[in-house]
Amino acid sequence: VIPSDYASLLERPLYGHLGTIRPDDTVQVNPMWFEYSTTSSGEHLRFTHTIKRAKFRNLQHNPAMSLSIIDPDNQFRYLELRGKLVDVEPDPTGAFYVRLGRRYGNAKQQPPPDSADRVVLVMRIEKSTKQ
Amino acid sequence: VIPSDYASLLERPLYGHLGTIRPDDTVQVNPMWFEYSTTSSGEHLRFTHTIKRAKFRNLQHNPAMSLSIIDPDNQFRYLELRGKLVDVEPDPTGAFYVRLGRRYGNAKQQPPPDSADRVVLVMRIEKSTKQ
Repeated sequence: VIPSDYASLLERPLYGHLGTIRPDDTVQVNPMWFEYSTTSSGEHLRFTHTIKRAKFRNLQHNPAMSLSIIDPDNQFRYLELRGKLVDVEPDPTGAFYVRLGRRYGNAKQQPPPDSADRVVLVMRIEKSTKQ
Repeated sequence: VIPSDYASLLERPLYGHLGTIRPDDTVQVNPMWFEYSTTSSGEHLRFTHTIKRAKFRNLQHNPAMSLSIIDPDNQFRYLELRGKLVDVEPDPTGAFYVRLGRRYGNAKQQPPPDSADRVVLVMRIEKSTKQ
């Protein structure tokens, strides 16, 4: 799904802007940390989130997700990844949050205060658009 | 609507990530140039677009729009602006495209090849979320 010449955008600790759809059919977009993986079961993005926030409720209503990533070295170059939520994994110790925090440059990242509510949102990537 | 300590994010030529909803109830997000204005008729964002692209069709179906902007000096700081399409202004000479191109750093910006199809999408800002 991912064009090979854009793969580095997923390896680098860039912020993606994740869109989801609210129950009232309006759209929510905000910056997110992410982790990309490709395995025999497909290509996925993982995000840290909590079960108490709007995006979680949005995704219970409509699993559609889209992530937009811009190349900081050439702002005309970007990647949009579309797909849907396929799994929600509990992260009660905040271990995945810590892994992402370290990926994004904080070597001493500690678990967040809301670890008890933390989950990993797993998005399967179905399509990509590049420019 | 805009928190005053976040206004500079709208004055600077930053890319915003604009979310719209496709007719099949999935979400589209991609980077956009924008121009912010505040007048007695409200606060608006203007984007250059064409009548031949997906986002235009999305907005005919559902006028909801949301723009996410990250502070490049502090990536934990961001602004999300929500609202809807309230007007579409023809831009057949590409004059608005040229104005935005100059705002984003290309002093010699020329009109684009698809000027005949160019429009200005006018979004009224109804809510903002900051972090």
